[in-house]
Amino acid sequence: MPNKSYVNYKNRGMFLEHILNDTNQYYLREDKAIIYKKPTPIKVLNVSYRSRKTTIINKAVFSETSTLDYNGIYKGKYIEFDAKECKSKTSFPLSNIKEHQMIHIKNILNHGGIVFLIIFICNNFYLFDGKDLIDFVNNNDRKSIPIETIIKQGHIINEGYIPRLDYISVVENVYFKENNYGEFEK
Amino acid sequence: MPNKSYVNYKNRGMFLEHILNDTNQYYLREDKAIIYKKPTPIKVLNVSYRSRKTTIINKAVFSETSTLDYNGIYKGKYIEFDAKECKSKTSFPLSNIKEHQMIHIKNILNHGGIVFLIIFICNNFYLFDGKDLIDFVNNNDRKSIPIETIIKQGHIINEGYIPRLDYISVVENVYFKENNYGEFEK
Repeated sequence: MPNKSYVNYKNRGMFLEHILNDTNQYYLREDKAIIYKKPTPIKVLNVSYRSRKTTIINKAVFSETSTLDYNGIYKGKYIEFDAKECKSKTSFPLSNIKEHQMIHIKNILNHGGIVFLIIFICNNFYLFDGKDLIDFVNNNDRKSIPIETIIKQGHIINEGYIPRLDYISVVENVYFKENNYGEFEK
Repeated sequence: MPNKSYVNYKNRGMFLEHILNDTNQYYLREDKAIIYKKPTPIKVLNVSYRSRKTTIINKAVFSETSTLDYNGIYKGKYIEFDAKECKSKTSFPLSNIKEHQMIHIKNILNHGGIVFLIIFICNNFYLFDGKDLIDFVNNNDRKSIPIETIIKQGHIINEGYIPRLDYISVVENVYFKENNYGEFEK
């Protein structure tokens, strides 16, 4: 049964992007991390030139990306992640992650980078580690990650005011303070 | 006096992008580094929907980027750079780097990232370190970096066949083998 307040999925997508952009600007201002959303790849098919400085694109289409949407640096480490909103309340469909993105996640892990998903499901934000994602795919035939697995293996990110979604505190706990997760309080 | 073979600056720009994309694909295939060019940021002004899956962009303009064009990971370290072709044979105009990009370069340095320019000038490719760039700007009133400074402080990147521009070998030397630069031979 669809939840009325979540009917407009397109706006929900923009909502998550918006609070992440706000958060990333906060991190930049506070000099805590440098994370940017990559521009959406667009294939330009036709342009016209109004002046030397103004090019108008008359025809273009969105194209697919091989990577995840956000990347940058925190404490010298390479960080990459994608943010996904999930309308299902029972599981996160793996169709959200394209096959070449899955390969990309494995590559980043192999090169020592930090890679994860931020999953918005059941009104909660979870950081779900890239390695846990790969392990799940390798060890299951399921086409979605059940909510129980996300709750168990994921790390909750609390919503706040400033910053709105302090995922770097969770990154700090999960990747920089090993064996200390759960004791951290901001 | 313009060199006839360099009259088409637009194609020259594409040429450098092309050999870097080739090189980055090679690094990816060989599992040596993961470096991507960020998509050019485009501001979409008008779209039409042909079907649920096909969105046609009818009007858009190119917008400015705050970051550099290429970023990724090598040996766990965050790497970011921009590639610039320079038509002048005597100096590299600093107008090539926007003020917010200069701030971004400082930020990356402060966070322990590797950041540089690849400058194509006088038919040679040079890796010019971000810190050297910042130091030059801080210590000079000049609006361009003279070729002598680029030759002295920059690190030449040899053109090859596969990969076409092995800048990662130079990164290895400059950032991972301190005090050993110049002795390295590929």
